[in-house]
Amino acid sequence: MPTGVLVKIYGDIQSGNCYKIRLLCSLLRIEHEWIHIDILAGDTSKPEFLQKNPNGKIPLLELEDGRLLSESNAILNFLAADSELIPTELFQLAKVQQWQFFEQYSHEPFIAVARFIAKYLGMPTERRAEYESLQAGGHKALSVMEKQLEKSPYLAGSLLTTADISLYGYTHVAHEGGFDLRGYPSVSAWIERIRNTPDYIGMA
Amino acid sequence: MPTGVLVKIYGDIQSGNCYKIRLLCSLLRIEHEWIHIDILAGDTSKPEFLQKNPNGKIPLLELEDGRLLSESNAILNFLAADSELIPTELFQLAKVQQWQFFEQYSHEPFIAVARFIAKYLGMPTERRAEYESLQAGGHKALSVMEKQLEKSPYLAGSLLTTADISLYGYTHVAHEGGFDLRGYPSVSAWIERIRNTPDYIGMA
Repeated sequence: MPTGVLVKIYGDIQSGNCYKIRLLCSLLRIEHEWIHIDILAGDTSKPEFLQKNPNGKIPLLELEDGRLLSESNAILNFLAADSELIPTELFQLAKVQQWQFFEQYSHEPFIAVARFIAKYLGMPTERRAEYESLQAGGHKALSVMEKQLEKSPYLAGSLLTTADISLYGYTHVAHEGGFDLRGYPSVSAWIERIRNTPDYIGMA
Repeated sequence: MPTGVLVKIYGDIQSGNCYKIRLLCSLLRIEHEWIHIDILAGDTSKPEFLQKNPNGKIPLLELEDGRLLSESNAILNFLAADSELIPTELFQLAKVQQWQFFEQYSHEPFIAVARFIAKYLGMPTERRAEYESLQAGGHKALSVMEKQLEKSPYLAGSLLTTADISLYGYTHVAHEGGFDLRGYPSVSAWIERIRNTPDYIGMA
């Protein structure tokens, strides 16, 4: 991020998408103001929030001059620009984005949603079938990660990037959505690797 | 894209995600070899394809040296690097990514899937309820786009970027998924604006 810019982050510490941003800010020691938004209490549907993000989602970044940026992975890449977490070589940079789009399309909708149903909604009977239906997609996503992490210590190669932070968010709590990570030894080793990064912080 | 690099693109011309890449290659006059992959015939589930992309999705880009890149929006940004379709200013670049992540999470899963059920599967009775359930999410996505396009001619501001190409892919054929665009005048004007861009090509 450009130096000297102070940012506000609207988020809920229980959300994996918001945790990604907290983890990045810790790793890069980015000062910020955290404004708590309670999803379950409906804060993201209130008019004052929808004025800031018409899509009604957190996390949301606000710059000092009022400019707003949504989408967790876009926020990560903006905050990490010019840091060692963003490759400068074009193809490597494209690989980071590849894994981030994979996260939003092929990983989060299965693993994060299954976890939400089990952990936050307490597995209501009427969503049990949906929860079960998410298991196959979640395991497919974990298998795709496992294949890459058998070949390289981090998703985009030999170095930690924002792609790892994006995917770490919900992967390291995937067991809360019913996904047993013992079948994914390379994913498990990658989780340990990230957990041992200097200035790492855990989820709330 | 770095000059002098010849690329292969694996895709199905009926897929909006693949059309994005064809449109970009036309606008930027990028030479490429198109390798036809038939999704409905199961080509993306075949072992030889899964070896190239374990996630079993198209489009897929292959460089001359065999390196592979998946995810349509990551491919767009790689191919357009150093062109006028990618902003150089950091916040503008983040806005492009914001809209691309929005596309994959909040737009495509509703509009593209509804279109797929109606147009390619011929609206089978057993998927009618799913089709209906996708309408609200699709209209929400179109409303978010409409709000932005009331304020600026393109999604990330005054210039055409890869964010517009990402969202144009399925928006301009949203009526095939049951979404009437007459309620979205700014989106409709933006579609016309893109259609009138030099070197534009339509979907198959």
